[in-house]
Amino acid sequence: MAYNLLKGKKGIIFGALDEKSIAWRTALRCHEEGAQLVLTNAPVALRMGEINKLAEAVNAPVVGADVTSMDDLKKLFEEATKHFGGKVDFILHSIGMSLNVRKNKHYTEIDYGFNQKTLDISAMSLHRVLRTAWEMDAISDWGSVVALTYIAAQRVFPDYNEMADAKALLEGVARNFGYHYGVKKKVRINTVSQSPTKTTAGSGVKGFDGFISYAEKMSPLGNASADQCADYCVTLFSDLTKMVTMQNLFHDGGFSFTGVTQAVIEQMEK
Amino acid sequence: MAYNLLKGKKGIIFGALDEKSIAWRTALRCHEEGAQLVLTNAPVALRMGEINKLAEAVNAPVVGADVTSMDDLKKLFEEATKHFGGKVDFILHSIGMSLNVRKNKHYTEIDYGFNQKTLDISAMSLHRVLRTAWEMDAISDWGSVVALTYIAAQRVFPDYNEMADAKALLEGVARNFGYHYGVKKKVRINTVSQSPTKTTAGSGVKGFDGFISYAEKMSPLGNASADQCADYCVTLFSDLTKMVTMQNLFHDGGFSFTGVTQAVIEQMEK
Amino acid sequence: MAYNLLKGKKGIIFGALDEKSIAWRTALRCHEEGAQLVLTNAPVALRMGEINKLAEAVNAPVVGADVTSMDDLKKLFEEATKHFGGKVDFILHSIGMSLNVRKNKHYTEIDYGFNQKTLDISAMSLHRVLRTAWEMDAISDWGSVVALTYIAAQRVFPDYNEMADAKALLEGVARNFGYHYGVKKKVRINTVSQSPTKTTAGSGVKGFDGFISYAEKMSPLGNASADQCADYCVTLFSDLTKMVTMQNLFHDGGFSFTGVTQAVIEQMEK
Amino acid sequence: MAYNLLKGKKGIIFGALDEKSIAWRTALRCHEEGAQLVLTNAPVALRMGEINKLAEAVNAPVVGADVTSMDDLKKLFEEATKHFGGKVDFILHSIGMSLNVRKNKHYTEIDYGFNQKTLDISAMSLHRVLRTAWEMDAISDWGSVVALTYIAAQRVFPDYNEMADAKALLEGVARNFGYHYGVKKKVRINTVSQSPTKTTAGSGVKGFDGFISYAEKMSPLGNASADQCADYCVTLFSDLTKMVTMQNLFHDGGFSFTGVTQAVIEQMEK
Repeated sequence: MAYNLLKGKKGIIFGALDEKSIAWRTALRCHEEGAQLVLTNAPVALRMGEINKLAEAVNAPVVGADVTSMDDLKKLFEEATKHFGGKVDFILHSIGMSLNVRKNKHYTEIDYGFNQKTLDISAMSLHRVLRTAWEMDAISDWGSVVALTYIAAQRVFPDYNEMADAKALLEGVARNFGYHYGVKKKVRINTVSQSPTKTTAGSGVKGFDGFISYAEKMSPLGNASADQCADYCVTLFSDLTKMVTMQNLFHDGGFSFTGVTQAVIEQMEK
Repeated sequence: MAYNLLKGKKGIIFGALDEKSIAWRTALRCHEEGAQLVLTNAPVALRMGEINKLAEAVNAPVVGADVTSMDDLKKLFEEATKHFGGKVDFILHSIGMSLNVRKNKHYTEIDYGFNQKTLDISAMSLHRVLRTAWEMDAISDWGSVVALTYIAAQRVFPDYNEMADAKALLEGVARNFGYHYGVKKKVRINTVSQSPTKTTAGSGVKGFDGFISYAEKMSPLGNASADQCADYCVTLFSDLTKMVTMQNLFHDGGFSFTGVTQAVIEQMEK
Repeated sequence: MAYNLLKGKKGIIFGALDEKSIAWRTALRCHEEGAQLVLTNAPVALRMGEINKLAEAVNAPVVGADVTSMDDLKKLFEEATKHFGGKVDFILHSIGMSLNVRKNKHYTEIDYGFNQKTLDISAMSLHRVLRTAWEMDAISDWGSVVALTYIAAQRVFPDYNEMADAKALLEGVARNFGYHYGVKKKVRINTVSQSPTKTTAGSGVKGFDGFISYAEKMSPLGNASADQCADYCVTLFSDLTKMVTMQNLFHDGGFSFTGVTQAVIEQMEK
Repeated sequence: MAYNLLKGKKGIIFGALDEKSIAWRTALRCHEEGAQLVLTNAPVALRMGEINKLAEAVNAPVVGADVTSMDDLKKLFEEATKHFGGKVDFILHSIGMSLNVRKNKHYTEIDYGFNQKTLDISAMSLHRVLRTAWEMDAISDWGSVVALTYIAAQRVFPDYNEMADAKALLEGVARNFGYHYGVKKKVRINTVSQSPTKTTAGSGVKGFDGFISYAEKMSPLGNASADQCADYCVTLFSDLTKMVTMQNLFHDGGFSFTGVTQAVIEQMEK
């Protein structure tokens, strides 16, 4: 069901790899809600993924951008604002990459060169995106930026590895840049801390299936799906949430404030 | 602007005293978004306030209920479900009362009899409302309950007095009942922690004007208004936020995660 | 091993029921560290428990006091300051009681009369103790008050029932009174959030054994014992922690910031 | 006053620049409490500072180490364990450096090369230190590691700039490594979040004096001094806090849980 919640709004979606991606589902929902979109991803992801299918579905151009390159980001915003004929109203940052995770390096044995890339791509990229927009004055007043994160930024989930630190850093950037962009242009910046989700990216994490099922048992409403996350992002991009900023918002069926459930206790007693 | 976000939904609004009330503004917005409503308040508040004006505007019956009386609450849900011809989809709990605040008792000198009433009316009332609905199975699956709270539940604001403790208790009830109602019926329960707002109730707090202006200076986006809070509640009652539960959601222009602002530092240097 | 950390200090210990009690262990450790003590508990607990054994061991008088009676508390502080020949330096509040838990009432079916007693005895009692001391000016400057709490105040542990709400309220009182007593007399007030502990009180909670073993598996260092809690309280009563106030301090082997452990994941996979 | 709390313990202190440094004060207090020490700092800091005065006072060798160099860290632990004739019992990490802060780059205009160094030196250095110890098995079972941090990791303090993100990352590393080291060797790892302190490092932050006075007014007990922080660290290195791990512990006179004080409100009304 659609409500025209984003009618007339223009948004950039980072990170739609394939149809399981939260970014992909969010793009579809934003389009249904009346938004115009520009899609972007890293050049390598553009080659691997199937973003052109999405681009057709939502009638949006695809602009490749390496989020560690200020030049690429500048071009992205130039093309986007040109395409829109005006400023950007919302941005979804759904970007994460860890070579240490991919190569199964234990947290205590990470490669520091890889780690630097992880922090740069997964967290500081949000700073770069915002700073590019800030310098070009490319986001409308009261615009909305959402970055996807995970509760490993607050509590330890051992298999999430160094991405936990990257997410803590990402949330820091959202909060700190949120202050400055809020004061200057009323732009609001939040992170959404989503249930573990069976995306292609999520599946890379060791022990992921066991963990998904644990999270399901630990969430009074069960795990939130990618589509439900997309719905939630729509509300955050809409004009109905204008005063929400610098928050980390758990979208997780209650996992974050559940210490234990009956279902888990029963499993523990087996 | 209206989006039909609550089309077909039925809700009960507690605590609309007069047109400054957040509950009042929320009732108006829910009506605009297509919801059917039942309004309720304490009998004494019904006499003092102007709720009939609101009832006309949103075409809703008014049912008096003392939230400390299980009989009254039962009658309320009976009348509401009869009026709606079905279950309730959402509830706004906007209820707070402190005789110690009204009588200017300092936090260290509160009357414990008054305090018991404060906790009962301002916090345990949420338990009573939910328990009544639970026993009558009066809330639809995936229904949504929002209770209004304040950041004094997390950090000390001396003039907020014993209401700070009442709000901490209220948030506890939301979380704990949220677990059980989530597991059983997928009902979600959240609190919205709103900026200080110039309502008739808020104005009773000592030093309130000075505090409003401090909060304004400490919030990157400024203080959130009652109308903006109403907008936010609409999103939480809608189907777009189905997996958000047991959360305390700050709706405060960024106040909650701002340690200090340039504006406050400048004032401190005077 | 003893360090004379509390040499010359005088303290009141509430809630030493029997030798498994955290309060009992804390009294022993405070005595070893050189403190003079006064022991107190509810008259009914004095009859049931074995406090006289403790009183002998730590050479302390026992003064009965119902913590819901301002008269009893006044007499307690009068006797204590008389016994000490001076003000009190530290207080341990280890008090909790829930008739709803004892009678196995489910959280959604609590008796509200019992609930009011639970809140009064388990949480507002801290307010009454502090207010009595405040009015009599019975705590030394830079004195230290610790109240024991549990993480159910932050996250849901279903079997902890209404005590979760009581602990949230208790932590609120610690914070709010901590502000006022800090500003006026530099008295510091903190809560210690302890691992589930096999005390006589703890054992009353339904499903407690299953839960203890879950907590053990979820804590990188395992569950903290009553003796270890006593050690920690000693540091908080000492002069080495003078600037720690209004905090909720987790003493739980890391449970509070662990999202999941390898041990739990393995159990889930069975 | 000394208690022999650290008698027989051996510790490494990072970051004692001059006598105002928290690390310096902590080294003195640890020595008084009976610990043997090894001091270390970056080679450049060794040249600028006066660490030899401290080394004499606490009878400890000084070993230079660049915390971004695994070779240097390995040598440091080799020399320390050789000097001690055994494993290390505690470590203080008091390390932070931001070229962006030094060069007055606004948060929205940081140099990303500098930022990478900031994160590396101020946060990932903790990972490197712990990983070196882990690989060499150089920390005793139940050893204790403390890293100094600041509340800007949770809330925005604009002038704290990118160090806020670095501290969020540092706290993440403490938590995540704390899990693994806890499970494997019972080593506990915490961060202490200290009041703003007039150290030589702290003074580099723009608007620091104004901010110190704001924090003083916002803390019921006033700002905590470097000496008081040293006292607190002693308790965390002692055997009395064995079950405290993965925590961020505020040592700030109550600042962290104070929303506003009467003193600040009065200033705002001027």
